[in-house]
Amino acid sequence: MKKIDTEIISVGTELLLGHVTNTDARDVSELLSRIGVNVRWHTVVGDNPGRLRESVEIARGRADLIVTTGGLGPTCDDLTKTVLAEAFGLPLVRDEAEYAGLYDFIQLGRIFTPNNYAQADLPAGCTVFHNDWGTAPGCAFEAQGKIVIMMPGPPCECVPMFRKYAIPYLRKLSDETIVSHSLRIFGIGESTVDQIFRDEMNAMTNPSMAPYAKECDCLLQVTAKARSEAEAEAMIRPVMDHAREKLGDAVYGEDVETLEEAVMQLLKAKPLTFAAAESCTGGDIARRFTDLPGASAFFLGGVVSYTNGVKAGVLGIDPALIEEKGAVSFEVAKEMAERVRAITGADLGLGVTGLAGPDGDGVHEVGTVFVSMASAEKTWVRELHLGAFRTRSFIRRMAGNHAFDMLRRYLTGLEV
Amino acid sequence: MKKIDTEIISVGTELLLGHVTNTDARDVSELLSRIGVNVRWHTVVGDNPGRLRESVEIARGRADLIVTTGGLGPTCDDLTKTVLAEAFGLPLVRDEAEYAGLYDFIQLGRIFTPNNYAQADLPAGCTVFHNDWGTAPGCAFEAQGKIVIMMPGPPCECVPMFRKYAIPYLRKLSDETIVSHSLRIFGIGESTVDQIFRDEMNAMTNPSMAPYAKECDCLLQVTAKARSEAEAEAMIRPVMDHAREKLGDAVYGEDVETLEEAVMQLLKAKPLTFAAAESCTGGDIARRFTDLPGASAFFLGGVVSYTNGVKAGVLGIDPALIEEKGAVSFEVAKEMAERVRAITGADLGLGVTGLAGPDGDGVHEVGTVFVSMASAEKTWVRELHLGAFRTRSFIRRMAGNHAFDMLRRYLTGLEV
Repeated sequence: MKKIDTEIISVGTELLLGHVTNTDARDVSELLSRIGVNVRWHTVVGDNPGRLRESVEIARGRADLIVTTGGLGPTCDDLTKTVLAEAFGLPLVRDEAEYAGLYDFIQLGRIFTPNNYAQADLPAGCTVFHNDWGTAPGCAFEAQGKIVIMMPGPPCECVPMFRKYAIPYLRKLSDETIVSHSLRIFGIGESTVDQIFRDEMNAMTNPSMAPYAKECDCLLQVTAKARSEAEAEAMIRPVMDHAREKLGDAVYGEDVETLEEAVMQLLKAKPLTFAAAESCTGGDIARRFTDLPGASAFFLGGVVSYTNGVKAGVLGIDPALIEEKGAVSFEVAKEMAERVRAITGADLGLGVTGLAGPDGDGVHEVGTVFVSMASAEKTWVRELHLGAFRTRSFIRRMAGNHAFDMLRRYLTGLEV
Repeated sequence: MKKIDTEIISVGTELLLGHVTNTDARDVSELLSRIGVNVRWHTVVGDNPGRLRESVEIARGRADLIVTTGGLGPTCDDLTKTVLAEAFGLPLVRDEAEYAGLYDFIQLGRIFTPNNYAQADLPAGCTVFHNDWGTAPGCAFEAQGKIVIMMPGPPCECVPMFRKYAIPYLRKLSDETIVSHSLRIFGIGESTVDQIFRDEMNAMTNPSMAPYAKECDCLLQVTAKARSEAEAEAMIRPVMDHAREKLGDAVYGEDVETLEEAVMQLLKAKPLTFAAAESCTGGDIARRFTDLPGASAFFLGGVVSYTNGVKAGVLGIDPALIEEKGAVSFEVAKEMAERVRAITGADLGLGVTGLAGPDGDGVHEVGTVFVSMASAEKTWVRELHLGAFRTRSFIRRMAGNHAFDMLRRYLTGLEV
């Protein structure tokens, strides 16, 4: 694909009031970066035709591809579509297939005003992106040397539609294909990854390689440009293998987003069940894993033992041990993993106890966390000192990552 | 405050790659909207001096206030500060207090390069915002008829700094004060709230009133402009009282963000303990409440009974009942709340069982959820049909909202 400088224009007053986060711009950017399209600007404007028109003029002057999100559909009078069609001199014409589809929706009992049918009016000659997740269709067209793609605003419509329709549309515009894969890394920071590969990265052009920091882990992205997908894949593979070798078992997955997702993949290949006893993570390990559809095949459940009473009464940990060693201790963490495994009948038990702050316990520094895992044969405990300057949410997330990392290492036969 | 059209420019290539969400723009927008400042544009550019310079020129041409986030500090060579100072013709001069502060940091063992000291170089004559949460200071200045405010990028620095320093700085620029309060509403949608108040809202100018949709609830914001805060508060109060009266017990709090926060406030006033037995929410109720510091005074813990085995083995629900009525049923929900209350010794027990999708159970439609609450005297169960077209995350969040809503109603003496 040629160099395509891209601007994403998100339309919605709720974004400017801070009532909604612009996750569309983030997710569309990530999808575009994976096919080698450079996003140079994000712009947000409210539901205001004048300001949208101005923003479109600015974008037209500097970008090759303009992606809009939001401002489609009846509640905003199809603002974006009207302004963009006008800016590129295209009339809006009724798409009969979309019109029929909207008509069918009425039969399902949704209330439609005449205004709703205007969603089926689209720029003449555009490629229609049917919305399988809502009512307002998206579309794409080329005009005046620019590419324009319009997507609905709700993230649960915008993102799957962009993946399903807009990415293949963009791929077709070029005889070059860009393919990108990432290695997801836990236990080594982005700056260390950068140091390991710096010389190589500077010497590489195609494929290219770059590390990126995420909240509690990082990733290494490898991207290749070629005439076919197969050729690009063939160029990427040896680089990925080489990087995997250098990074060793800090790599927890390829093209995954989270440690729990990597664990889910491993469990699908090697079915085992697990349960979790959580203190400072307060249910976040259970929540994260059960966010994934299909979790019930592997996750039996857990106990949120936020107080010593629950640690004793529900998990069955000896109160004298808690009294002697303290709730935040190696010994109690060990018991938590073993007891939750025993009472749920799971193959593996996880345990987490620690101080997420802001208040301490007078004994340990905030950020002290013990994470444990019990199998039939053995129990492992990691002692973490995540730093008293860290936020509560960072400490909770990082503690959960360590728990999933222990599972991951166990399932892949690594030393836990 | 006069009408201040505002543009937020966020600087960071990681935003354009989709690796990071622009929560700074959202949070700064929300803080500004509360003091009546209109945010008209968000712009994101990468770590690129040329494109930042262009964006600053555009912003200067249309906005009265430019807020930048990110691009301060050593990793990006203080890009934003350099470009903004140049654009407004101000030299950078060393701030001795900030320099001394950075020097002290070295004593704490952090590694500094000479480049780090450049963080203490700030536009001549600016107001320095000391960074109590990191190293790079922020600042504000007025030049060429514009106001410029620069903030560091990490959200845990940007947001508290903006609240502590930038908001008072902006308030001081005006002899008018804007005060805003919100009523948070659960159980009535934004469009209904809009209908209830539409005529009044159209007739109002100062104070003004507007409803906004959030993910699983909505809010009504009341804003007044006056010469003093006391005067603005006095103007707002009768409008808030009137709105509260019209909305009745759908109002769950004033100036709170979530139902769990409202529950926390109620529990602080009337201490009771609770526990939760969660099936389809998978620990999210526990996670949400324990996200709040101080949760341990009221939340004893819970059981994530993701499988029937845990419902029986850990909660002690009769397997025959689960067999007869099904895991997703009124009866099992009732037992879950009662049993978790019994085994933890809490004053109140919550229970949630349902289908979050995407897979169904062959009996109920996805989105069917039973939410329950047990006290010593009585157990209540709500049967919800949240809609099969909803996402898994929506169903889980909404189910949790209902559980917190039942707690909230109980604690305020309303019918549950």
